Amino acid sequence: MPIAAVDTPALILDLDRMNRNIERMAQLTRRHGVALRPHAKSHKSAEIGRRQVNAGAIGLCCQKVSEAEAMVDAGISDVFIANEIVGAAKLRRLAELARRAAITATVDTAAGVAALAHAAANAGTVISTVVEIDTGDARAGVVPGMPAALIARDIAASDHLRFMGLQAYKGGVEHVVRYADRQLQFAEVVAHVRATLEALRPFGLKCLVVTGGGTGTSSIAAASGVFTELQPGTYIFMDGNYAALMGSERQEPLDFEASLLLLTTVMSRGAANRAMVDAGTKAVSTDAGMPIVYGRPDIRYVRGDDEHGRLALSGEASELLLGEKLLLQPSNCDPTVNLHDWYVVVQGDTVVAVWPVTARGAFF
Amino acid sequence: MPIAAVDTPALILDLDRMNRNIERMAQLTRRHGVALRPHAKSHKSAEIGRRQVNAGAIGLCCQKVSEAEAMVDAGISDVFIANEIVGAAKLRRLAELARRAAITATVDTAAGVAALAHAAANAGTVISTVVEIDTGDARAGVVPGMPAALIARDIAASDHLRFMGLQAYKGGVEHVVRYADRQLQFAEVVAHVRATLEALRPFGLKCLVVTGGGTGTSSIAAASGVFTELQPGTYIFMDGNYAALMGSERQEPLDFEASLLLLTTVMSRGAANRAMVDAGTKAVSTDAGMPIVYGRPDIRYVRGDDEHGRLALSGEASELLLGEKLLLQPSNCDPTVNLHDWYVVVQGDTVVAVWPVTARGAFF
Repeated sequence: MPIAAVDTPALILDLDRMNRNIERMAQLTRRHGVALRPHAKSHKSAEIGRRQVNAGAIGLCCQKVSEAEAMVDAGISDVFIANEIVGAAKLRRLAELARRAAITATVDTAAGVAALAHAAANAGTVISTVVEIDTGDARAGVVPGMPAALIARDIAASDHLRFMGLQAYKGGVEHVVRYADRQLQFAEVVAHVRATLEALRPFGLKCLVVTGGGTGTSSIAAASGVFTELQPGTYIFMDGNYAALMGSERQEPLDFEASLLLLTTVMSRGAANRAMVDAGTKAVSTDAGMPIVYGRPDIRYVRGDDEHGRLALSGEASELLLGEKLLLQPSNCDPTVNLHDWYVVVQGDTVVAVWPVTARGAFF
Repeated sequence: MPIAAVDTPALILDLDRMNRNIERMAQLTRRHGVALRPHAKSHKSAEIGRRQVNAGAIGLCCQKVSEAEAMVDAGISDVFIANEIVGAAKLRRLAELARRAAITATVDTAAGVAALAHAAANAGTVISTVVEIDTGDARAGVVPGMPAALIARDIAASDHLRFMGLQAYKGGVEHVVRYADRQLQFAEVVAHVRATLEALRPFGLKCLVVTGGGTGTSSIAAASGVFTELQPGTYIFMDGNYAALMGSERQEPLDFEASLLLLTTVMSRGAANRAMVDAGTKAVSTDAGMPIVYGRPDIRYVRGDDEHGRLALSGEASELLLGEKLLLQPSNCDPTVNLHDWYVVVQGDTVVAVWPVTARGAFF
């Protein structure tokens, strides 16, 4: 079946490009001697996760317990939940999951440690645990240095938790436009990690894992000397927001290919300078910016309504036909994938498989 | 089971408030002698759709063929697809659906008429069809007046289509803040309809249906004298963007209650003035603005990350506890509902049912 026959809107995954992305990130981490633990929140796919592990990843990251359950059910044996899990119901599920796979949890408060230890005790298990430090992103994490070390000590003191190390992730630095600026800002993250390692020393606590680094900082984190493990997600697809960074740096740091596009159909031609497609905000996320009309600089996606995408046309695009199909590159892949039930996997122009979005909607 | 025991993030649907909204819109349309055809794109729920029909609605609107299929499968016998359907695969499905339910389709081009007639002929059926006119929204629709009348004539000339009337919907007017301004802008929509009715006269084509009007213009469209049918969706839930209009007009026009809220849990307390909840853009749409923290003016939802919502705290909110639950009112219900698999239905503080989001992800 050719791509042109696929009904829309549909996620089109280019298998060869994706496989090259998998291989490139595996090479990058091998070269620097750090472990690779790709983030499954981007793809939510058991099939893709297995391919990442087969290419050398030590396991996967997930954000949610239900996402981790879906990956373990699919045969992934080592999952790090890179997000604080709060609430008795979720902690019970997390502890049960730790009985059937290698699960690592994240905490950033003493109360979080106590609740996690309680759930582990109830399930009769021991849960590997990292402390998340605040990297200045004003999101999650405890203050680096002594406050973080005190939480690590609490973990180590529990019979049902095993202190593994630190998470230091700073989303805000991933999309800084200039590579040199990204390096500079990431140096602060490294300084926070070092301060915390320093604070841990008097307690005699060994940090086996320092995890962090996304697609935009993968080569920086790999070369930092303090990170033992990277957790990039988007490199598998490369979305519009990362693609925008690539113009200024055609070297190693972001040498990944756009493997995920959204096929959409022109469903209305109102005037010479505008058209509508059948992919609105229920099919493509616009929270982080409008999608790019792939390979068509003469067409701009200017607004997403719930069910409609509005296009502004210029030049040749004024000849766009009703029923014509276009490809969109989402600004942000993660929430876009979460809107879909499957990937249409292609090689060249031919559909070769359909893969479910295994953990779609898994936000518990 | 009390609401407090529901795991998060979860859509909480207040049954009594929703039932009052259903009754109020039914009353409004009855009073004006117009038909009510609520838009199912907002709730995507067979259970809610059946309640709307039981309260007097003549059927439902849907935006997509797959959404209509889900509603027909659930026992709704009359569905208007208020959106141009383009592409052979979808038209085939539409024509098949018209063999087992009363289906009305929408077109805005001569090519659209030909393709729809072809699909109807292949399925051996006759499809009721309306012409969508461009109301100045720069979205879909043919130019009102003679261009619209020519398309109506094409429909009437087909053995496999039945000309029913016009759709005139203008999304842009629904959220105009002042009611008087909304009335003024809606008068233009009415003028476009009148011009088209005038143009139809020489062709001897009778317009049985003039459909349009959303939640924000329901009372205006009902009183217009030209609309025979209203298609409001959001009144069932009332989202934050509509709620924002209500301050200035506590009279009939938007006398609906917030029946749909999103329960979320505080998952991190970074500093006195901030917190994080477990509902990010994969659980609540932020395309049309941030959600409101319901009943808590001391807390603002300032940003949605993929998995996290960032809160800014003031006053008493600085005492917010890890694990505490909050209710969010989405800015836009439709894409938010589409992120969820079910509604947790409550009366007072008690969970009384769980309803599936029947047509979640139905974007074909």
